[in-house]
Amino acid sequence: MRSFLGRDILSLKGFERAEFEHVFEVCDELAPIARNRQNAGLLAEKTLLTAFYQPSTRTRLATEAAMHRLGGHVLGFSDAKMTRAGDFYQESIKDTVHMLEYYGDVIAMRHFEQGAPAEAAKWASVPVINCGDGWGEHPTQVLTDLYTTKKELGTLDGLTFLLVGDMRMRTMHSILYAMSQFDLEAYVVGPPEMSLLPEFKSELDELNVRYTEAPSVAEVIADSDVIYMEPVVQPDYTKSRDERGEAVGTTPDAYRVTRELLRDQARPGSIVLHSLPRMDELPEDVDATRHARYWSEAFNGVVMRMALLALVLGAME
Amino acid sequence: MRSFLGRDILSLKGFERAEFEHVFEVCDELAPIARNRQNAGLLAEKTLLTAFYQPSTRTRLATEAAMHRLGGHVLGFSDAKMTRAGDFYQESIKDTVHMLEYYGDVIAMRHFEQGAPAEAAKWASVPVINCGDGWGEHPTQVLTDLYTTKKELGTLDGLTFLLVGDMRMRTMHSILYAMSQFDLEAYVVGPPEMSLLPEFKSELDELNVRYTEAPSVAEVIADSDVIYMEPVVQPDYTKSRDERGEAVGTTPDAYRVTRELLRDQARPGSIVLHSLPRMDELPEDVDATRHARYWSEAFNGVVMRMALLALVLGAME
Amino acid sequence: MRSFLGRDILSLKGFERAEFEHVFEVCDELAPIARNRQNAGLLAEKTLLTAFYQPSTRTRLATEAAMHRLGGHVLGFSDAKMTRAGDFYQESIKDTVHMLEYYGDVIAMRHFEQGAPAEAAKWASVPVINCGDGWGEHPTQVLTDLYTTKKELGTLDGLTFLLVGDMRMRTMHSILYAMSQFDLEAYVVGPPEMSLLPEFKSELDELNVRYTEAPSVAEVIADSDVIYMEPVVQPDYTKSRDERGEAVGTTPDAYRVTRELLRDQARPGSIVLHSLPRMDELPEDVDATRHARYWSEAFNGVVMRMALLALVLGAME
Repeated sequence: MRSFLGRDILSLKGFERAEFEHVFEVCDELAPIARNRQNAGLLAEKTLLTAFYQPSTRTRLATEAAMHRLGGHVLGFSDAKMTRAGDFYQESIKDTVHMLEYYGDVIAMRHFEQGAPAEAAKWASVPVINCGDGWGEHPTQVLTDLYTTKKELGTLDGLTFLLVGDMRMRTMHSILYAMSQFDLEAYVVGPPEMSLLPEFKSELDELNVRYTEAPSVAEVIADSDVIYMEPVVQPDYTKSRDERGEAVGTTPDAYRVTRELLRDQARPGSIVLHSLPRMDELPEDVDATRHARYWSEAFNGVVMRMALLALVLGAME
Repeated sequence: MRSFLGRDILSLKGFERAEFEHVFEVCDELAPIARNRQNAGLLAEKTLLTAFYQPSTRTRLATEAAMHRLGGHVLGFSDAKMTRAGDFYQESIKDTVHMLEYYGDVIAMRHFEQGAPAEAAKWASVPVINCGDGWGEHPTQVLTDLYTTKKELGTLDGLTFLLVGDMRMRTMHSILYAMSQFDLEAYVVGPPEMSLLPEFKSELDELNVRYTEAPSVAEVIADSDVIYMEPVVQPDYTKSRDERGEAVGTTPDAYRVTRELLRDQARPGSIVLHSLPRMDELPEDVDATRHARYWSEAFNGVVMRMALLALVLGAME
Repeated sequence: MRSFLGRDILSLKGFERAEFEHVFEVCDELAPIARNRQNAGLLAEKTLLTAFYQPSTRTRLATEAAMHRLGGHVLGFSDAKMTRAGDFYQESIKDTVHMLEYYGDVIAMRHFEQGAPAEAAKWASVPVINCGDGWGEHPTQVLTDLYTTKKELGTLDGLTFLLVGDMRMRTMHSILYAMSQFDLEAYVVGPPEMSLLPEFKSELDELNVRYTEAPSVAEVIADSDVIYMEPVVQPDYTKSRDERGEAVGTTPDAYRVTRELLRDQARPGSIVLHSLPRMDELPEDVDATRHARYWSEAFNGVVMRMALLALVLGAME
């Protein structure tokens, strides 16, 4: 297994089974710190730089919270408009990174352009963590989701995932890559205009990832252990926040997971994960059912970032 | 007296005299830390989450400064536009709180909607501190103001307050509730269209709060010990920042406190409090008079938040 | 030499040679902390308040990073719109400072108006560091640049600077003031409409600063040791970010420093400094030449702020 010290976390493609398992073990070790609500001093001498070129609440705050839980320092920006990249200067990633690398000991980056964190990693003397890059990937979120599944269902082998939503989304990319390392299969359900791209399908084939496209949640929910959701109605992440507009649509029934559907058709032990925020694809009355595990996902989101920060900064081996 | 450990600070209605006195004692204990400008380590293992859905300078920074003074960690957001609540998703308080509660050990919330912090407290596993909720209340500010009065005048009994400004404002609600616990009476002066609402008056009657509405500052300043001001000309806090516009009006003389009025009519020992920012209701030349105590108020604003954070997080009993 | 304890850093006019040298010595002492990427505890009990009325990436983050490197706490704002000064209230510097001074132990201020940090220093009980004030000065940047020159070339005496860009810019003011304390001379090259103002020239004459205006970089680069650049094409800093617009121009050749020019005409040991961001005045292919030292400048930017914070807060003498 490759060492995590100083390593960039950019993609789950090529992330190996032993590496997933090692990260999950470190999560188990660090989770009590978060659960007991007592910051530790593990990273007291380190600084996290958050470079968020797109607004984000969950990912940014979970990453910052993780650093604080380990006693570390945090600085950065949460909006490209606050930077030279977002204004008049349109500063290059290279120029920006040759400044940011001196301000922190690890850079957590969200960017509206796919590949931007990888470009940053090319120039940075410190590890870069991809916190979501356009349509690209979202490795820390999917690591969280897989860890949550493992904690809730005891295993990551022999399960069937039902992936619902926009299949072009970055979390869908990351989770399908990750599935190559476990005995998992997936149903894939989303609107036709949001289906898996042909190039991506070829990649999945090369990795022996087993997935079946299905027309609706209802058709496959009875055979699924983990219902993994993303909104179908959503802003266009390739556009800037201001261009996206504020219109809110309605999710077709085929892509919704309701309490009734869960009651009538789902496996009794199946769980629902959703990285949130949600639109109408996941009604609030699901929260009170045994299937809802998205609040644990939120907690694990902090634990996972604690593990990744501790690993790449060398506080855990 | 109810314990403060883990307690939400949402409203001063129902806050009891012994509780006020206890909080003031803790302020006295912690004030030297702020005065000596040396952060302590009391909350080094704790994290404050600031959830400010409306921009705020004073309240947010005073609360954050308090946490830093006690050695704690701070993260959060200071603008709803940076969150999923303020955008496309219009995320519910419940969904947001089920994320925020894992990011910090106490949540300080400002919200444009009355009752939002109480709704948050319903769902959160950590204490919620109301830092101003629409027209609702502003308990930490008014605790600051009462503590300042106690420090400056030696007592909170036997005094007359002159409340000037928009009587629908949240500080006015909190201070009038608080007056039920002390031997205090109040003159209430503000434009007719900004007077106390009938429902609120009924509440005050039930609490035996003694107040008299008066047409102008000039008419009652001679009988007042504490002149407590809020701007009359101000943005509409129920609207979003952008909708409020930028127009600046002029405060009618009846609701202004000038140096001349203080010199000619005020009690020699009376004090002027103002949570600031100010418009023309309090001209700058009052600053140089013995009546001005609003800078002490600013200092005490940090001390009060130190006390509240230390109490709800269990660092002080 | 005047003590640095509690001192405001507002201008390099009047900053004396021994003071420059002392600050550089403290930089040398503190640099290993930044280089080893291990935060120290020197300022663990202190809080930095960043009051940035204009967005800034480099200066704000470098200053915050410096505070974190010394173990200190940081809070503040990075946009005037987030404050009462930038909205409806248009709060005065005095009122704002009488709040901010209780929130931190040192205030780092950037302001769109020349003189604002000096006005703040007049009222504040804590030291104020000018992080750029309109067309005024930018002392921490220029201290960084001089320190970088000293580290790269071993001396600050007997050198010729070539100052290229908008001569009305704050860095140009600060560096020309600073040159009065060393055996330095300067060529000054910029568009005619951006040349040194007559009042400022008179000041330089009174300080015996030696400078010669020249029409183009090409004409004087062969006689220069330090090529010190600012963009010529830039937003108007006296306007708010939104008013500035987003147009991007082209820099005339006379004010550009290219790889070809460096190869054909520059002194072999000459260095190029640029506080960045850059436009087309400094093409990216210069980065790979021995002349480029702007990345060191970025690193030294953190070290310099560490030194200044440690000095004014009394952690170093």
